[in-house]
Amino acid sequence: MGERARSGEYNRRVGIKTHEIRHRVLYAETDQMRVVYYANYLIWMEMGRAEFCRAAGARYRDMEREDGVLLAVVEANCRYIAPAFYDEEVKIETWVERAHPRMIQFAYRVLNASDDRLLAEGYTKHIVCDRELKPSRLPARYRPLFGVGELRRPDSSIIPAAAALEDL
Amino acid sequence: MGERARSGEYNRRVGIKTHEIRHRVLYAETDQMRVVYYANYLIWMEMGRAEFCRAAGARYRDMEREDGVLLAVVEANCRYIAPAFYDEEVKIETWVERAHPRMIQFAYRVLNASDDRLLAEGYTKHIVCDRELKPSRLPARYRPLFGVGELRRPDSSIIPAAAALEDL
Amino acid sequence: MGERARSGEYNRRVGIKTHEIRHRVLYAETDQMRVVYYANYLIWMEMGRAEFCRAAGARYRDMEREDGVLLAVVEANCRYIAPAFYDEEVKIETWVERAHPRMIQFAYRVLNASDDRLLAEGYTKHIVCDRELKPSRLPARYRPLFGVGELRRPDSSIIPAAAALEDL
Amino acid sequence: MGERARSGEYNRRVGIKTHEIRHRVLYAETDQMRVVYYANYLIWMEMGRAEFCRAAGARYRDMEREDGVLLAVVEANCRYIAPAFYDEEVKIETWVERAHPRMIQFAYRVLNASDDRLLAEGYTKHIVCDRELKPSRLPARYRPLFGVGELRRPDSSIIPAAAALEDL
Repeated sequence: MGERARSGEYNRRVGIKTHEIRHRVLYAETDQMRVVYYANYLIWMEMGRAEFCRAAGARYRDMEREDGVLLAVVEANCRYIAPAFYDEEVKIETWVERAHPRMIQFAYRVLNASDDRLLAEGYTKHIVCDRELKPSRLPARYRPLFGVGELRRPDSSIIPAAAALEDL
Repeated sequence: MGERARSGEYNRRVGIKTHEIRHRVLYAETDQMRVVYYANYLIWMEMGRAEFCRAAGARYRDMEREDGVLLAVVEANCRYIAPAFYDEEVKIETWVERAHPRMIQFAYRVLNASDDRLLAEGYTKHIVCDRELKPSRLPARYRPLFGVGELRRPDSSIIPAAAALEDL
Repeated sequence: MGERARSGEYNRRVGIKTHEIRHRVLYAETDQMRVVYYANYLIWMEMGRAEFCRAAGARYRDMEREDGVLLAVVEANCRYIAPAFYDEEVKIETWVERAHPRMIQFAYRVLNASDDRLLAEGYTKHIVCDRELKPSRLPARYRPLFGVGELRRPDSSIIPAAAALEDL
Repeated sequence: MGERARSGEYNRRVGIKTHEIRHRVLYAETDQMRVVYYANYLIWMEMGRAEFCRAAGARYRDMEREDGVLLAVVEANCRYIAPAFYDEEVKIETWVERAHPRMIQFAYRVLNASDDRLLAEGYTKHIVCDRELKPSRLPARYRPLFGVGELRRPDSSIIPAAAALEDL
């Protein structure tokens, strides 16, 4: 997990652009504590991730269907900072935190859309797989979209992707 | 929809045995009204249906995987009679209400497991499909398990399955 | 259930305006049949219903929170006509099919957003409850929003709401 | 997060007994990758946690309802090691990893029930809250059930709970 988890700084951007979507909290997403049930944040992360890809120029559906590239989740983490309530509008920010040809790590922040209060933050780590769910490598044409090959460290110095491989 | 829907008698058994499972209501299943969210009853119906099949001698997973037989839902209905609450134990009763080689209709009752109060009742109607989701026919060896070929009417007289085809 | 269910014409509009929303199918909503899992359509109906209310001038959150008016589901029905697939954009149309001071029935159609193919249609029937989930009556100021007191029949002739009470 | 997260040893037991439940994977839980969708593991963790509490002598429903003690999730983490498939029977092991009067951290392992292959592991961290979701302290009578006041370190030496407070 390295540097990031130790410092707890989920929201430090590492160069690649952040994509933002909005979502209105559903009744289905609440529980009897009158707040959003915790597993639903992982669905919001999926929403953010899919739209990040689309905005970057890669429709995830086509990556799977046409190129047989699957991003299988190997880790998910969410820290819940303040509850989200029914019918509240939230913003989900998504960016790529780390990436190399075999792995992409997305990071997320969930905020109240009207006052920007931070509600939750987290990350998901994905390995690139083929249709049989065997580990594979990201085809060259997708690499620039996720910043593969130009991985940034928090100090924004660009380092060769190979140097990040020990992290996986 | 015929006789059944008009009369509202969901729980009339038509010959084939009823299978019963138990389920403990999850926090995830509640909403801020402090009761189980309505879509979750359809998941409970799935639970009941899968265990009905297993008890009848057909593991649904194997029907799909080995025989390419898919039961695609074409209609679902649920009437909510009394709310179900967190951590309550419920019973889900499942039986086959109508069946012929191209269609199976399951019916369900959800009851409180300790006092047998009726909480909900409903049905799901499925057409038999192949792996490409094209309409197909139930292989002969599965037919007896679902009562195909010996369809019963509410008066328990056995009628030829062909006579029921106009209902679909 | 009366006229509607017998004829199977879910999509006949009865006067009150239809509200339309769009939704992009999530990975979370699919199942291993590679189509949207059937219970999720009931969540889409909730989305449609909430936005119908908002467009009509009643935020459902405030109905509950400020006026103690809960619309408890007593029946849900969905007919699945064609599968919905991952990342497909769907339209959900919502309108009020029947309404009187103690009950509101919403109807829905789900269509592919690009070619308007009908994917599913259904309805949900709600009784008006107070905070203790006891049957109640819709406060006067909400009635016009749902067409209560001016119920229409399919021929668009306006009839007194009282005349519709026998249906409940 | 301390020692545990850095070393990645999720499954080291720290003294308190482990509780095990079994669950049959539902169709509803799969996605079009033909494996269980990642958010559903957090629901399995809830199942494990509720049954851990019941086995320890505390029904979580009653903790909330009668004592106004809510365990609000502040962090969830899951590492996905091997996919879970439809109709597979899984075991969910749950134990308390860390606990003091204001915080309980549960840890989990998900295994295939027939061959004990590890499928996933994770943890959830909860703060003790009152009915208004304000931070509170675990009532004395619940403390022994969660091992509060006799926190163990991985070497099984019992340390005073106060010494662990800096971790929160």
